[in-house]
Amino acid sequence: MRCVFVLNGPSLNLLGVRQPEIYGRATLGDIESECRVLGAELGLSIDFRQSNHEGVLVDWIQEARGAAQAVVINPAAYTHTSVALLDALSAFDGPVIEVHLSNVHKRDAFRRHSYVSLRADGVIAGCGAEGYLLALRRVASLLAD
Amino acid sequence: MRCVFVLNGPSLNLLGVRQPEIYGRATLGDIESECRVLGAELGLSIDFRQSNHEGVLVDWIQEARGAAQAVVINPAAYTHTSVALLDALSAFDGPVIEVHLSNVHKRDAFRRHSYVSLRADGVIAGCGAEGYLLALRRVASLLAD
Amino acid sequence: MRCVFVLNGPSLNLLGVRQPEIYGRATLGDIESECRVLGAELGLSIDFRQSNHEGVLVDWIQEARGAAQAVVINPAAYTHTSVALLDALSAFDGPVIEVHLSNVHKRDAFRRHSYVSLRADGVIAGCGAEGYLLALRRVASLLAD
Amino acid sequence: MRCVFVLNGPSLNLLGVRQPEIYGRATLGDIESECRVLGAELGLSIDFRQSNHEGVLVDWIQEARGAAQAVVINPAAYTHTSVALLDALSAFDGPVIEVHLSNVHKRDAFRRHSYVSLRADGVIAGCGAEGYLLALRRVASLLAD
Amino acid sequence: MRCVFVLNGPSLNLLGVRQPEIYGRATLGDIESECRVLGAELGLSIDFRQSNHEGVLVDWIQEARGAAQAVVINPAAYTHTSVALLDALSAFDGPVIEVHLSNVHKRDAFRRHSYVSLRADGVIAGCGAEGYLLALRRVASLLAD
Amino acid sequence: MRCVFVLNGPSLNLLGVRQPEIYGRATLGDIESECRVLGAELGLSIDFRQSNHEGVLVDWIQEARGAAQAVVINPAAYTHTSVALLDALSAFDGPVIEVHLSNVHKRDAFRRHSYVSLRADGVIAGCGAEGYLLALRRVASLLAD
Amino acid sequence: MRCVFVLNGPSLNLLGVRQPEIYGRATLGDIESECRVLGAELGLSIDFRQSNHEGVLVDWIQEARGAAQAVVINPAAYTHTSVALLDALSAFDGPVIEVHLSNVHKRDAFRRHSYVSLRADGVIAGCGAEGYLLALRRVASLLAD
Amino acid sequence: MRCVFVLNGPSLNLLGVRQPEIYGRATLGDIESECRVLGAELGLSIDFRQSNHEGVLVDWIQEARGAAQAVVINPAAYTHTSVALLDALSAFDGPVIEVHLSNVHKRDAFRRHSYVSLRADGVIAGCGAEGYLLALRRVASLLAD
Amino acid sequence: MRCVFVLNGPSLNLLGVRQPEIYGRATLGDIESECRVLGAELGLSIDFRQSNHEGVLVDWIQEARGAAQAVVINPAAYTHTSVALLDALSAFDGPVIEVHLSNVHKRDAFRRHSYVSLRADGVIAGCGAEGYLLALRRVASLLAD
Amino acid sequence: MRCVFVLNGPSLNLLGVRQPEIYGRATLGDIESECRVLGAELGLSIDFRQSNHEGVLVDWIQEARGAAQAVVINPAAYTHTSVALLDALSAFDGPVIEVHLSNVHKRDAFRRHSYVSLRADGVIAGCGAEGYLLALRRVASLLAD
Amino acid sequence: MRCVFVLNGPSLNLLGVRQPEIYGRATLGDIESECRVLGAELGLSIDFRQSNHEGVLVDWIQEARGAAQAVVINPAAYTHTSVALLDALSAFDGPVIEVHLSNVHKRDAFRRHSYVSLRADGVIAGCGAEGYLLALRRVASLLAD
Amino acid sequence: MRCVFVLNGPSLNLLGVRQPEIYGRATLGDIESECRVLGAELGLSIDFRQSNHEGVLVDWIQEARGAAQAVVINPAAYTHTSVALLDALSAFDGPVIEVHLSNVHKRDAFRRHSYVSLRADGVIAGCGAEGYLLALRRVASLLAD
Repeated sequence: MRCVFVLNGPSLNLLGVRQPEIYGRATLGDIESECRVLGAELGLSIDFRQSNHEGVLVDWIQEARGAAQAVVINPAAYTHTSVALLDALSAFDGPVIEVHLSNVHKRDAFRRHSYVSLRADGVIAGCGAEGYLLALRRVASLLAD
Repeated sequence: MRCVFVLNGPSLNLLGVRQPEIYGRATLGDIESECRVLGAELGLSIDFRQSNHEGVLVDWIQEARGAAQAVVINPAAYTHTSVALLDALSAFDGPVIEVHLSNVHKRDAFRRHSYVSLRADGVIAGCGAEGYLLALRRVASLLAD
Repeated sequence: MRCVFVLNGPSLNLLGVRQPEIYGRATLGDIESECRVLGAELGLSIDFRQSNHEGVLVDWIQEARGAAQAVVINPAAYTHTSVALLDALSAFDGPVIEVHLSNVHKRDAFRRHSYVSLRADGVIAGCGAEGYLLALRRVASLLAD
Repeated sequence: MRCVFVLNGPSLNLLGVRQPEIYGRATLGDIESECRVLGAELGLSIDFRQSNHEGVLVDWIQEARGAAQAVVINPAAYTHTSVALLDALSAFDGPVIEVHLSNVHKRDAFRRHSYVSLRADGVIAGCGAEGYLLALRRVASLLAD
Repeated sequence: MRCVFVLNGPSLNLLGVRQPEIYGRATLGDIESECRVLGAELGLSIDFRQSNHEGVLVDWIQEARGAAQAVVINPAAYTHTSVALLDALSAFDGPVIEVHLSNVHKRDAFRRHSYVSLRADGVIAGCGAEGYLLALRRVASLLAD
Repeated sequence: MRCVFVLNGPSLNLLGVRQPEIYGRATLGDIESECRVLGAELGLSIDFRQSNHEGVLVDWIQEARGAAQAVVINPAAYTHTSVALLDALSAFDGPVIEVHLSNVHKRDAFRRHSYVSLRADGVIAGCGAEGYLLALRRVASLLAD
Repeated sequence: MRCVFVLNGPSLNLLGVRQPEIYGRATLGDIESECRVLGAELGLSIDFRQSNHEGVLVDWIQEARGAAQAVVINPAAYTHTSVALLDALSAFDGPVIEVHLSNVHKRDAFRRHSYVSLRADGVIAGCGAEGYLLALRRVASLLAD
Repeated sequence: MRCVFVLNGPSLNLLGVRQPEIYGRATLGDIESECRVLGAELGLSIDFRQSNHEGVLVDWIQEARGAAQAVVINPAAYTHTSVALLDALSAFDGPVIEVHLSNVHKRDAFRRHSYVSLRADGVIAGCGAEGYLLALRRVASLLAD
Repeated sequence: MRCVFVLNGPSLNLLGVRQPEIYGRATLGDIESECRVLGAELGLSIDFRQSNHEGVLVDWIQEARGAAQAVVINPAAYTHTSVALLDALSAFDGPVIEVHLSNVHKRDAFRRHSYVSLRADGVIAGCGAEGYLLALRRVASLLAD
Repeated sequence: MRCVFVLNGPSLNLLGVRQPEIYGRATLGDIESECRVLGAELGLSIDFRQSNHEGVLVDWIQEARGAAQAVVINPAAYTHTSVALLDALSAFDGPVIEVHLSNVHKRDAFRRHSYVSLRADGVIAGCGAEGYLLALRRVASLLAD
Repeated sequence: MRCVFVLNGPSLNLLGVRQPEIYGRATLGDIESECRVLGAELGLSIDFRQSNHEGVLVDWIQEARGAAQAVVINPAAYTHTSVALLDALSAFDGPVIEVHLSNVHKRDAFRRHSYVSLRADGVIAGCGAEGYLLALRRVASLLAD
Repeated sequence: MRCVFVLNGPSLNLLGVRQPEIYGRATLGDIESECRVLGAELGLSIDFRQSNHEGVLVDWIQEARGAAQAVVINPAAYTHTSVALLDALSAFDGPVIEVHLSNVHKRDAFRRHSYVSLRADGVIAGCGAEGYLLALRRVASLLAD
């Protein structure tokens, strides 16, 4: 069974609580559950994690090199500021799908730029929690090729 | 049965032929077929169109006001230059999902800016032809709410 | 009797319906009627048209070269993106008045720039439907000189 | 009878003399007379003033809070540099119409930006002395609502 | 007893009336009273003034050279546009504290730049009327050294 | 005999009439005739067209894929704004030569940028109507290789 | 008794040692002591912390959601680069006061931009160690309302 | 005898006192005396004035239209911010020489831009008080032609 | 017989050797020969030169004032950096045609700007060595007028 | 024996594996060995470390204040984004040499800017693993002075 | 007797011939004569030179280190592009006065920037040939101190 | 024995004299001697040259194509302005190492950009005269491969 790392950046542990008018009411636990259900259906094992630490996210992406076939990542605030995430992902060979809950293009100008997009194969924004599920579907297709 | 307009911008009629290393080998006909199959499954009637004319696309978006519950749009080159598409979409009340076959963030700088994203509810890029299917799934969820 | 082309750009056919909090509740038909009434009073014959197509607007401006003494134009979305309208208007010798329903200077940054203003003799913004009438008054004065 | 302050910025006292190829040959006295005539017709009392001093213009706008129902302002050079005028106008509740004799969009780049437009309800440029009259018509309509 | 000039820029005389959702409901008179009370406590004589005129503010800053040991200044709109205030303050040797009622960093982009900050020793923004009191405390500390 | 599409953008049908001090006095018909004469000499069949519609130009470029060995294009105003023309030309495999009657580098800043140049093999500007003939010579050389 | 988190960013543990001509000679321990003394006077319990790790600061801000009524933060170098701090603070409901020892507006251009200011209620810069005390006074006032 | 207005902007009344390392130790009175001596030699009557008020400077430039043959102006801080001075000078027909005591090109970036230079015939910077004398010599030559 | 200076900038003496994938395999000697052949046919005497020295190129352009009727120039690297070439060409009265072997618009951003284009009558880029021949044809036409 | 901290930023632990066409095939272990050999020769004790965590790198630089005479640092991705590293290094008194394996000036635009260079004494880029050895030689020279 | 190098940049040898509407009708020989006359009066020996070569100008500035007490320089086109002139002048200890015949601030944007001004003590622009004489007067004053 | 050209740009002949606080006290002759000593040790013959002329430097780089295996270059002021040096170096096949005595990143903004870095294999800045020696070591390693 193929493994997918689903990595979540800073303050996503507050999902459902923090600014629900922007990010929706689903908690990160809810999303993890939905991912596991769909993962099982698609034959994907889900390793779901969250950290507020850029360095920890880099460590996990490096860990994915041996342990996962694909990475789904919602880098949250680090999307816009982290060259370190970009470089770590550049050292990962499998599919990378970037997910944003909100449509970042409608918000502050600085949220429109993503370092991670320079490496990501696909980018899904503004589809709320369902964005994670769409990302897993895309991963399943890519791994099936 | 709910109707979704799936609108395609300039030169997408050449899909599968034009720069397949960027846009893939699926033709627009292939994509339409896949959309119809998934649409049927999701209870969505698909009205699939393509035009090289910005004004025709604006006409169709206006037509969607009475005729469709949602719009999926791949504005292609007009993504980056058309305020007219943005304004037309702003007069449509249902869900709008923007799709790009390639990850536009990895290409020319001028391809990173989208007027359409200022209105779109969701944006899906770099998922190839499958991006249309993911968009339809998102539309189905939104219409189900 | 002198003829004035009153040309309207994309999505203005939706006036009164689309974002009335920005554009007001008058329909384009209402505006046309008011223009005809005032035109009659000022001795101006009004040729009132709308298109979503940049090319059609260019065709009409070229037609105005032989058929009209002045042009009043609300280029809507093409205001900000169309060098083609600018070039077509530059080949027209009579007065050109640019009209915007809303005060474009209060909205998105990209709405503050107008290619058409580089040719227009006068620019009237933020006066709602009445802006068309003020434009006709200005045209009448200029043609009277 | 409703009162309108018509305020004029620096060097407009030289109208008719200074660069008539740009600003026309009407003097400020001519414009005041025309405004009074039209004002009488529209039921508007006109308080017409000019100053070269930014601070005096701010004082007058503050005075308008109790004394006038609307402000028509040609801020001249202060258009482009005065946040103080913007802030003073923001504390005035009635209609504000900004007037420029020339089409500022065709001139130096620094003349294309207006702080006053961020508050103005309407903006009329390039209609020469007649621009004041168009502004008064708009004011009359707005006060009539 | 040491003297502090507390200088206020354009439209601050409208405090409590103008946009209270941004600037609060305290009037400038209220603030002056609070400053006098705290000044007495801190051993500072308060000379509290307001003008809409940039030149008058420059005159007062020059007057402070002989008459005051410190300047607290809320330059309001002139914050963003006045090199003259900066130059006048540069000729004053004592402490200068800049105060803004609102958090200017959350507002229009042009309000984020301050010429006065290039000379000020301290800058206090977004603390409402209390910002004046905090500034006086800082002045007292600096004069005590 | 090899076929060359010579495509002309908006308002070029007014050549000889519109701003002759910039664009010269030759009409588009004159240019077509000269192209046919030189084409015959060079063994090239000339298909000469003009449209004010961006979409029509895109359609014609797509048509050239099967029908022509080379494209000479004067995109006029669309030079500066049309990604759609760039994308359509990118799907054409033969030589593309871009022609401008005037030296665009001496005019408005926005006329110095060309999307079409990102695909064109050669660019000829400021050589007036003769620029078309030079372009045909270049096409003949390239097709001869 | 109300609790205030006073959070300090990278290298502030070196205060009094590192570049004292910019940051002064008080150590972070000195500042903590002064804060505790004033906090006691104002009825505020002070939880004073420092970290060089962006992620740890995010963790602490999240912890403040349940444990503190207000946050005073000197983000130091992360002021200018951390969207993560901004997002974490946006999920905190109480007052946030941003403190900088030096007047950041007088230093390198990149130090003039603060992500944290987009969320902070108040910003105090250039008041040295006393800035913390002024911030606590402001917090006390806000919590008293 | 020909009259020259020598106009001085804000804070120049502090010359010799304010930042002498930048502006030198000569007072404005010293400069006036030197101007009078050289003026007498060159056959020029000198009308030497200083104001901190932009509006007063505009008034004086307007007064010069009837009363002086040339203007020498050191606009000080208004150099960089005053379109009003530029517009007033544009209505003056005689020679205008702009003087700066310091070499403004070596100082803050914002001091490198001068609105006044867009009208001035000559610009003399960095020659200290002697710059006024050089300006008078130039004026004398121009008036002699 | 009319004389044309054909001037070549730095490193063009390495043509055919240096980066042939960009500049082609023809040597500068080959190009000179082709120019002489076509020049003879067109009745033009060709004075063909190359230098790595900006100053030498300026000297030659000055020499052309008395000695040549037209200048064809490939300024190579000095295209982008030399105001001196622009100024020297501005003192030459005859036709100036600028040639670039490659399409500079497809390369580094800094290669898209040409000082020489601000003076050139025509610009031919991306036509390889044939560009020189097209330039001579254009010169012949212009001298024939 | 003098101690040098050789600090390595994020993903450098993957050296030899990650994008070897950019970074070469030497592993970080290989580089450490070479540094130790040269260090011994130069009389330098080498403390060689790597972390993916910005905060850890800051901690180590602070630790160097007491424990090392010099710092050699390859900040990798944090080069471009970390003001925190700059500030920490600014509190270190000894020599600082910045090393980059690749020539960062040839890569993405955002890789050309280094915050660390604002403090570094020397910068060595594009010399591969040997860059570390060159840096140690420079350190030895500086410490010998 | 003190020696002043008066150095002239590219194409100034064409003065009086090249664009006299901008640069005047005096030749460089005329200017040299006037400089010699005034130099004699002021006790200055004049070494007057012109070159089209940046390197020659650098050589001469270096020569001035031993041979001259001051440099007057009109760098012409190299004003805007030559860091080499700036660096050479930075190695000269005496007064440096920069002269421009025309008011460069009224011309192309790229002519407003001067590298030489970063070193010059004084800058005189727009005073025509007389600018050289004013510069010599300033030099005489500075050398007299 | 392998030959290395060590090329030095404008004003480097003044080393040791010009601004020693920036560039150090070693003369260019000292550096040449040190290079020869180390070159002998590394088996490299050193051809050490300096010129103030951009064109001469281009000539020498071209000469290096046949005569040298590597180039070490300190382009000095031409670093920032010379595309000609970049193009000449691009036609040289061996290793190129760029050296700067000072850390250019700490100085004027315009000194941070290097055209030469776009071709250089390695860049060494801020290591003083020793930078040349480090460059030679790197050259020796590269030639040994």
